[in-house]
Amino acid sequence: MSKKNLNERALDYHAAAPAGKIGITVTKPTETQDDLILAYTPGVAEPVRRIHKNPEDAYRYTAKGNLVAVITDGTAVLGLGNMGALASKPVMEGKAVLFKRFAGIDVFDIEVNAPEPEDFINTVARIAGGFGGINLEDIAAPHCFEIERRLSERLDIPVFHDDQHGTAIIAAAGLLNALELQGKSLEEARIVCLGAGAAGIASMRLLLALGARKQNIFMVDRKGVIHTRREDLNEYKLIFANDTEARTLADACAGADVFVGVSGPDLFTPDMLRSMAEKPIVFALSNPDPEILPELAHKTRSDLIMATGRSDYPNQVNNVLGFPYIFRGALDVRARTINEAMQIAAVHALARLTREPVPKSVLDAYGLKHLEFGPEYIIPKPLDSRLIEVVPPAVARAAVDTGVARITPAKG
Amino acid sequence: MSKKNLNERALDYHAAAPAGKIGITVTKPTETQDDLILAYTPGVAEPVRRIHKNPEDAYRYTAKGNLVAVITDGTAVLGLGNMGALASKPVMEGKAVLFKRFAGIDVFDIEVNAPEPEDFINTVARIAGGFGGINLEDIAAPHCFEIERRLSERLDIPVFHDDQHGTAIIAAAGLLNALELQGKSLEEARIVCLGAGAAGIASMRLLLALGARKQNIFMVDRKGVIHTRREDLNEYKLIFANDTEARTLADACAGADVFVGVSGPDLFTPDMLRSMAEKPIVFALSNPDPEILPELAHKTRSDLIMATGRSDYPNQVNNVLGFPYIFRGALDVRARTINEAMQIAAVHALARLTREPVPKSVLDAYGLKHLEFGPEYIIPKPLDSRLIEVVPPAVARAAVDTGVARITPAKG
Repeated sequence: MSKKNLNERALDYHAAAPAGKIGITVTKPTETQDDLILAYTPGVAEPVRRIHKNPEDAYRYTAKGNLVAVITDGTAVLGLGNMGALASKPVMEGKAVLFKRFAGIDVFDIEVNAPEPEDFINTVARIAGGFGGINLEDIAAPHCFEIERRLSERLDIPVFHDDQHGTAIIAAAGLLNALELQGKSLEEARIVCLGAGAAGIASMRLLLALGARKQNIFMVDRKGVIHTRREDLNEYKLIFANDTEARTLADACAGADVFVGVSGPDLFTPDMLRSMAEKPIVFALSNPDPEILPELAHKTRSDLIMATGRSDYPNQVNNVLGFPYIFRGALDVRARTINEAMQIAAVHALARLTREPVPKSVLDAYGLKHLEFGPEYIIPKPLDSRLIEVVPPAVARAAVDTGVARITPAKG
Repeated sequence: MSKKNLNERALDYHAAAPAGKIGITVTKPTETQDDLILAYTPGVAEPVRRIHKNPEDAYRYTAKGNLVAVITDGTAVLGLGNMGALASKPVMEGKAVLFKRFAGIDVFDIEVNAPEPEDFINTVARIAGGFGGINLEDIAAPHCFEIERRLSERLDIPVFHDDQHGTAIIAAAGLLNALELQGKSLEEARIVCLGAGAAGIASMRLLLALGARKQNIFMVDRKGVIHTRREDLNEYKLIFANDTEARTLADACAGADVFVGVSGPDLFTPDMLRSMAEKPIVFALSNPDPEILPELAHKTRSDLIMATGRSDYPNQVNNVLGFPYIFRGALDVRARTINEAMQIAAVHALARLTREPVPKSVLDAYGLKHLEFGPEYIIPKPLDSRLIEVVPPAVARAAVDTGVARITPAKG
């Protein structure tokens, strides 16, 4: 499909009546006057009194428990940059579609016109009460880190910035599998991360939590390697400052086991790939144009395992493998947060699922005859219906185990 | 039905799975990978670019054009008082149900935890862009007046505080009909309004716009008649300060043609009613317990026309006759505001509809054999399916005529 065709088809898809992609549905009967007396005044007064007395009753008498707000300030929309709040609405509606389609979660998309983090934080905090969780979306780094941290501290529902943790979780799951296939360990792996924005920082943080060693991680931003003698580092980058002589991306890549790109097209060269250690792993996640095209990469190194962000190559790191199921698990136990243990539980559930035999339904969804755990299949496919069965329970269990669940899930 | 039964049934109704009353529905196909490519990345990028270039395109490519935010701060929930933001959620969801059920409008309910008007205004203004209109709800007076005014000035979409204008519009429609039946004119009518909160102030403002004379309006608050020598009046009450010797409600009622109560139970006595002019009109709108019960009022004066806020008596002043259709009309022409002309158009459309022969479908919905314009039928019934046909076009036309419509409606 040509790009022009895609654009035109996408416009038609969005404009077809009713415009946009989501609407409201009434979930209770409203036909008779008696129905309406229960749904609105005078019947509605009693649920109000109950919630006023016990705020937790909002989970019982309102849609809160299955309702997530997808919220953006429009400062980092897709790869398009700062498009502003309103223009981001199609993306936020799209996210709502995916939440509903894959995990049955209801989403209100909220576009906040507040370029200042302080205003954005206050706005989100004030409207958060009616929701079971907050999915922050397309907020530029470094503000996104402070915004997420402060909202998490202030609110007693999960606050999850998908551009950080979504990408981090899926990439980590794929990476664990790739490392196993290449016979490497995360503890020993030398890792280069190109791009120190939301996804890069969060991915490396999660790898640290999973056992990677800080001195083995080389984070590279626009100015080169992030090292201890740089004086231009914000607090989020500073964590990854490496006491190294490496200065350029090429320096960092020499002998590296893993390259993770969350930057831009064609920034990773065949020469850099050649300089990596034996059995290298390359996650070129820039979208739609990766840091290196898979054809070129495989031509350069035959011992390579590779992933991208694209659906037209094997091993797509796609956030839709994460957020619907992670929130499903969190909402199912009315979790107060989505903590690191829950994120790690999702990583392992995704990694494990990939090693299971692939059922026919998944093969059919992609018109495939065969698919099995190996260099071309290190991450589950988005249309895999087993995801909803394995990821949410793992996340919910981790919430219960770490004491952030309000309720214990029914035995499943 | 006993009160206890109603409460228990209402709790069951709200708690039945899925909890609450509204959910999200996806309005476009999402089955295949190709569908998802259009709904989300990479397809979604093009609508984003279009809206970034031309914000009006949000009406074309997103749900904005049919999406209303029902927003409260929880300071005046039903007759229950300041219940806080979260506890008001069942009411806001109920409002969403009514918007959808009667006018096909999608609603996100937003409960804002911001007791200070300044914070509330900023919060609403920042999230408003993604919506086609804002329905403010259950916000206490006098803050509600400033909140609505400032938001209306700041935003280019309708901002409508239903507790003010909804009540005002339905009451005015009923009152015009009652005046006609009693052979009185609005210009000459002496009007007493008990209660100077959101509904009272807005109702009297609207009556002024419809032709009532300021010197004929006697507004009464907790301290008695609002007159020119009082020094405790806020700017909203001051407009109605009357140069009169009347000090008490009883003083004001003597010789009055119309009593409008938006206050509390049993505050209007048979003696006051007896003192009114011939052929009096009493709108006792306090809910669920009116200022005077219809049985008592009719026993006191046989020449009376009466309305209440209750569904179990004739002539119910019910906001659901207004807001769904007023917003429908406003959204249909992408109106920038809901101005006085549009409100007056709704008043006349409602008043006129009541004088038309009542179709069988309406009789059936209420199990009635007969219903015709007269003292016991001065306001349409909520389940009248003609409302959607007559009120929105009238409102839309007024929007076009006053230059606040972005588009002209298709000929209907």
